[in-house]
Amino acid sequence: MSILLRISYDGTGFHGFARQGPDSPLRTVQGTIDAALRRLFKQDVECRGASRTDAGVHARGQLVAFDPPFAIPTRGIMLGLAGLLPKDIAVVACWEQHRDDGEPVNPRFGNLGKHYRYRVYTSSVIDPNLRHNCWHLTRPLDTAAMAEAAAMLQGEHDFASFRGANCQAQTTTRTITEAVVVAHPPADTWPADPTPLSHDTTVIDIHIRGTAFLYKMVRIIVGTLVEVGHHKRPAAAIPQLLAHPDRRRAGPTAPAHGLTLMEVLWAGPSP
Amino acid sequence: MSILLRISYDGTGFHGFARQGPDSPLRTVQGTIDAALRRLFKQDVECRGASRTDAGVHARGQLVAFDPPFAIPTRGIMLGLAGLLPKDIAVVACWEQHRDDGEPVNPRFGNLGKHYRYRVYTSSVIDPNLRHNCWHLTRPLDTAAMAEAAAMLQGEHDFASFRGANCQAQTTTRTITEAVVVAHPPADTWPADPTPLSHDTTVIDIHIRGTAFLYKMVRIIVGTLVEVGHHKRPAAAIPQLLAHPDRRRAGPTAPAHGLTLMEVLWAGPSP
Repeated sequence: MSILLRISYDGTGFHGFARQGPDSPLRTVQGTIDAALRRLFKQDVECRGASRTDAGVHARGQLVAFDPPFAIPTRGIMLGLAGLLPKDIAVVACWEQHRDDGEPVNPRFGNLGKHYRYRVYTSSVIDPNLRHNCWHLTRPLDTAAMAEAAAMLQGEHDFASFRGANCQAQTTTRTITEAVVVAHPPADTWPADPTPLSHDTTVIDIHIRGTAFLYKMVRIIVGTLVEVGHHKRPAAAIPQLLAHPDRRRAGPTAPAHGLTLMEVLWAGPSP
Repeated sequence: MSILLRISYDGTGFHGFARQGPDSPLRTVQGTIDAALRRLFKQDVECRGASRTDAGVHARGQLVAFDPPFAIPTRGIMLGLAGLLPKDIAVVACWEQHRDDGEPVNPRFGNLGKHYRYRVYTSSVIDPNLRHNCWHLTRPLDTAAMAEAAAMLQGEHDFASFRGANCQAQTTTRTITEAVVVAHPPADTWPADPTPLSHDTTVIDIHIRGTAFLYKMVRIIVGTLVEVGHHKRPAAAIPQLLAHPDRRRAGPTAPAHGLTLMEVLWAGPSP
């Protein structure tokens, strides 16, 4: 019997999701949850996550599983972890799952897909209050061209042009089920807020849903879409990059802090 | 000749705006700007702010003035400070102002009013990514009742019921020119984001504009409006509190981190 947790975190203070070695001083999401589970169960308990988010990447719907050494009601786990976890991680749901074959549940292999959001803001001025959650760009973006380019990423393709240098994946064919660009005018993002500061500020969200992703794939896609938005390359560059895999021809990797793992799709039972 | 700066900051890492004594280890917005000015001009230069925001309060349009010991073009001041200030403060505008009487410009006394925004979110789950900028409440709010109560705060009244314990003001009559409550449904705040996490999340902004404010007045008003939103008291309690000044009968002080100083209205020249 495994326990599943849906968790939300601010990635700013973490060196990514994946635990480091036992003697590492680096603070990670997985290591922090392990430490809370150790205090709850008075013995070592290790958790497994659906996505190994990088340093600075946030999550609102990460999925984590662990195998409790003895039974505690899920409500007790929720309350116990709420008291043991720091303020930058929250458990938003907790439920049990049994597999018919008796194996432990692993969210990394058992999930049906993920939804990421990348948030950018374009403005002539910097807003320090957005610095941990949005990528700041000074020049405006042509969001219609970006949306056109994003639409061409949808479907099953070889995404080798969009894989990070340390990617360990054996295959590079993946399926993006949805890639959309949503521009919020200032009035939408900060209603009733006609201050000079926001007059030229636009927040742009890039939503990408897919069944699986290569290492840094979303951030390289965003870096490439921003080049399209700045008219450094046409939207038609996307099918070229998909047809002729070459990382050097895609755009730069967008910074981690604009990225949020919104949801992990789960076929099994949910709360 | 004075120089005016419009500045934006994330108040999370500061013990408020006002500088502490020279030997205090506390980091403040004013002290941080003074330190940058000292490096820029190679001598002590002290700045003056329009609003002494409390620890944890943010700003997008704070106004600060100082008197440069020698002339530097405003563009040079902008670029110089951009390189000297930490990432949680940004200068968004810089301009010169001379007073006919030759006195230094003081944004505290020279301003025509201020606009504050207080942001609340109601949700059954905590979002760690909102913890520095929104007050989290579990129970939903009746925003129509809050809007009705807010409207009754508008006008010139004795706000003694809404002053903090350490308020130094000689008089307690102030004018609120606008007090409105804006509720954003999840679709408005996080468009194209139909995740379970946000299904019951509502972000509510309380915008208050006025000519001048008592110490902690906005946060006590918000604490009182939230009690109206939770049906702990009727909207009609507001005229009672204005007619019979008594701090003990108003609501609690809302936490600092939901508050942002949006704008300082300035009659003089602007950039």
